[in-house]
Amino acid sequence: MAPASTATSGRLASVYSEVQTSRLDHSLPLPSVLKSSFQIVDGPASSAAGNPDEIAKLFPCLFGQPSAMLVPSQTSLPEKKLKIGVVLSGGQAPGGHNVISGIFDYLQDCAKGSTLYGFKGGPAGIMKCKYVELTPEFIYPYRNQGGFDMICSGRDKIETPEQFKQAEETAVKLDLDGLVVIGGDDSNTNACLLAEHFRQKKMKARVIGCPKTIDGDLKSKEVPTSFGFDTACKIYAEMIGNVMTDARSTGKYYHFVRLMGRAASHITLECALQTHPNITIIGEEVAAKKQTLKNVTDYITDIICKRAELGYNYGVILIPEGLIDFIPEVQQLIAELNEILAHDVVDEAGLWKKKLQQQSQQLFDFLPNAIQEQLMLERDPHGNVQVAKIETEKMLISMVETELEKRKQEGKYKGQFKGQSHFFGYEGRCGLPTNFDSSYCYALGYGAGSLLHSGKTGLISSVGNLCAPVEQWTVGGTALTSLMDVERRHGKFKPVIKKAMVELEGAPFKKFASLRDEWALKNRYISPGPIQFYGPGSNDINHTLLLELGAEA
Amino acid sequence: MAPASTATSGRLASVYSEVQTSRLDHSLPLPSVLKSSFQIVDGPASSAAGNPDEIAKLFPCLFGQPSAMLVPSQTSLPEKKLKIGVVLSGGQAPGGHNVISGIFDYLQDCAKGSTLYGFKGGPAGIMKCKYVELTPEFIYPYRNQGGFDMICSGRDKIETPEQFKQAEETAVKLDLDGLVVIGGDDSNTNACLLAEHFRQKKMKARVIGCPKTIDGDLKSKEVPTSFGFDTACKIYAEMIGNVMTDARSTGKYYHFVRLMGRAASHITLECALQTHPNITIIGEEVAAKKQTLKNVTDYITDIICKRAELGYNYGVILIPEGLIDFIPEVQQLIAELNEILAHDVVDEAGLWKKKLQQQSQQLFDFLPNAIQEQLMLERDPHGNVQVAKIETEKMLISMVETELEKRKQEGKYKGQFKGQSHFFGYEGRCGLPTNFDSSYCYALGYGAGSLLHSGKTGLISSVGNLCAPVEQWTVGGTALTSLMDVERRHGKFKPVIKKAMVELEGAPFKKFASLRDEWALKNRYISPGPIQFYGPGSNDINHTLLLELGAEA
Repeated sequence: MAPASTATSGRLASVYSEVQTSRLDHSLPLPSVLKSSFQIVDGPASSAAGNPDEIAKLFPCLFGQPSAMLVPSQTSLPEKKLKIGVVLSGGQAPGGHNVISGIFDYLQDCAKGSTLYGFKGGPAGIMKCKYVELTPEFIYPYRNQGGFDMICSGRDKIETPEQFKQAEETAVKLDLDGLVVIGGDDSNTNACLLAEHFRQKKMKARVIGCPKTIDGDLKSKEVPTSFGFDTACKIYAEMIGNVMTDARSTGKYYHFVRLMGRAASHITLECALQTHPNITIIGEEVAAKKQTLKNVTDYITDIICKRAELGYNYGVILIPEGLIDFIPEVQQLIAELNEILAHDVVDEAGLWKKKLQQQSQQLFDFLPNAIQEQLMLERDPHGNVQVAKIETEKMLISMVETELEKRKQEGKYKGQFKGQSHFFGYEGRCGLPTNFDSSYCYALGYGAGSLLHSGKTGLISSVGNLCAPVEQWTVGGTALTSLMDVERRHGKFKPVIKKAMVELEGAPFKKFASLRDEWALKNRYISPGPIQFYGPGSNDINHTLLLELGAEA
Repeated sequence: MAPASTATSGRLASVYSEVQTSRLDHSLPLPSVLKSSFQIVDGPASSAAGNPDEIAKLFPCLFGQPSAMLVPSQTSLPEKKLKIGVVLSGGQAPGGHNVISGIFDYLQDCAKGSTLYGFKGGPAGIMKCKYVELTPEFIYPYRNQGGFDMICSGRDKIETPEQFKQAEETAVKLDLDGLVVIGGDDSNTNACLLAEHFRQKKMKARVIGCPKTIDGDLKSKEVPTSFGFDTACKIYAEMIGNVMTDARSTGKYYHFVRLMGRAASHITLECALQTHPNITIIGEEVAAKKQTLKNVTDYITDIICKRAELGYNYGVILIPEGLIDFIPEVQQLIAELNEILAHDVVDEAGLWKKKLQQQSQQLFDFLPNAIQEQLMLERDPHGNVQVAKIETEKMLISMVETELEKRKQEGKYKGQFKGQSHFFGYEGRCGLPTNFDSSYCYALGYGAGSLLHSGKTGLISSVGNLCAPVEQWTVGGTALTSLMDVERRHGKFKPVIKKAMVELEGAPFKKFASLRDEWALKNRYISPGPIQFYGPGSNDINHTLLLELGAEA
């Protein structure tokens, strides 16, 4: 067992900016149900998102658990000294530190004498029993601050029997009453497997998940949004708004902006709703319409040509990072390339290309050189193309250029085209959390503490009614198994929380779809400006959430 | 003469974000000298920044003009109806709209019945007499907003005798009493030539300049800063701070951040002072020390190796856009390539390379492939490499990778290196201006109005004492000729306002130099957070200005 590191924070020696300092003492409102005595009321038994029979087999102890809801009560939960662990899993999202603060404050307020351990570096910290005991002094410098550096995160998973055994040993060694896993869909699935494992082993340790991802693709009826999405989108939207004003001022650039968010296009859609770009590509729509890269190129080119006729040789185009993942023909090409690169010699003369199927060969030749090279070179350790490294925005600029040149030759286009590429990614994952994310995360953490205190396990902390003032937010937990379906992998059923994709029938997409033609040809740009912590705009909530909750038309 | 366009604003149909809307009615404080009656007091006769005899010959009417300073007075300037033009010249900088608002409000407040014409699309608008008459309704939607889209800008220059003639015709046609030129070093030189021309022709039109450039390289004793620098640096610093938190949280990336600012490295230096990165390259220092690209690569690599020994395989590195312009050997290579590409055939086999001098050939071979390609392909209409398009950050990542690999083979480096590249550029030029830039620009414009009202010409609007509260700011004008030197071009002396480079003996650089070794190995990151318009941090002034004015140690 590794010794607990001394309780001094990596940030204690830091110099803070004035804004950072002001955020430290920003007081966080709590939902009123958390401000006095409450009890937990169970809802009806739950099922699963799909294949309930298989989920029931995979989670014999936990399947069917009801949702839990906090309601005011005359009596408090019994005083108890708890030993709780917390872990950050996966990519950074603004607000993670506040989840931890929320758990900590819950324990201080409602379970005096409790201990909170922060496992370091993600799930590996659980397996290796690498942790720090969190104290008020340790936590303070991270309040309302971005990043995950209080205890850092990691991408390891607790998967094999040996790894579950290690987690079990850690829980026993630290005499844990509970564990909070802060993560995305995979990490929450993992949290539920751990909860099931602990329950099967009749251990006292409970496990509660928290919904984290800037991508916004972990959500359900009971979990209206994942934290970090609000902040990340606002950071990107600030930059997009600035670039739009630049486009309108210079009148000569098309800015192609690639935005983080690989699996789903929620970030791109939200940024579009915040800024009103001329063109927005939504991956889910491209997939649903089975579009080719040529279709996407033509769509963009058509609008550029129409705008040129109106005298506009500038514009802003938003592209989700995962675009090419949504295009079947590109997927096919990549699969074939992976095979060829794994098994064949890639000769300079290009004879290897003959091994591609005809459609893939045509597509490959259609791609700009730089992208051909990226497809050939960048492989992850598993031999797969690293899609996130493919500069889709430059690829589209190049393909649009070629198409416009062709149309110019044919006399169909008389404009001038200059493309500028941008990738807004890392700068959005670790910003100072917005007031919304600060409060939401604090409530998620505080609520997770209450769920563990009352002995719940296998739930994901759920805070609802988010369009109302914080005081009126609801607090509870949702059975993780109720969010699950199964996927067949290597001949076995594996439980998965399905990523929430952009719904083409959902309110956010429908609003976007109803306005995009107007945005395409008229310049309805909005500049959201920098995130504000005080004054006008400081309590705005993102459009996706407002629309999904019916609070915006 | 083109008809004035109708006085409806392009932004009238716009939807504004809550923050944009709140900025519209943000009330702008004025220096107290502008709030009641004032008179203008002349200082002593001025000289030039260099070669005063040649400047005197080039500006026979204007050379030697004294600086002007506004001081409180019992009597106001005589009521007069003025006809004034204003033009935006060159790249966008946050606050330009407020300069125009300042001029407009001056005329409304102190010269009732005056007219303000906005020339459209930069100096070309003057030559073609393309303008819009500015009204309160037209101007209102642009108050405290970013961008230059109220009247747009342009990069044309008034240079040839025909062009001066056109400008003269416009001044006569519109019966102009004065013109305000908002621009950088070139545009202000041009403004002074125009002032001289009008004076020689005994025309009544006066010309006043205003210091604009996010690059911060137009400044002097009397003109402490150019507007837009404050906002742009804060926008970049927000992003850098976010990326730093990300670096510290993930612990596995080196972020190479290229920052806008080609001629001088003020932006990079200011961002370093705001955020404390591990490594910062200042072009002026590279030039002064006559460093090669290999020297710069080694400097970065050495620090990465030392950090690896301390267990840090992450970090943040700032690079000025213009870095390669400061490296003599790269300049030489580019000059040779320009010649070869203009006159020779570039054969696939690479025989053309033999035409390079030995040192250049070695350097070329040392460069990563992608950069070799950029050097060969991208030419501007004059046949020159477009340095701004060269992805210096990727070049350095690639060169550092190669060097680290070598050291790894030699057993001198045992760390892991993953580079992530960023370019923060366009997103900084058109942001909503900070409170500082908003107020500074408004005072610059208001002051320019007062200078024209009192018959001054050939001055640049100068607002001083900027570290004090706005009420105590000084307002006046500085003889543009006093900022000038001459350069010999095509056998003739041309007047130039020399760009203010980063002074290696100046306070900002010295402060940076005294701290950078600590920043290199310890992680002293600061996250400035998003620009705030209310509350803590909202009235911060950039470090460069504070240090140069002696208001920060």
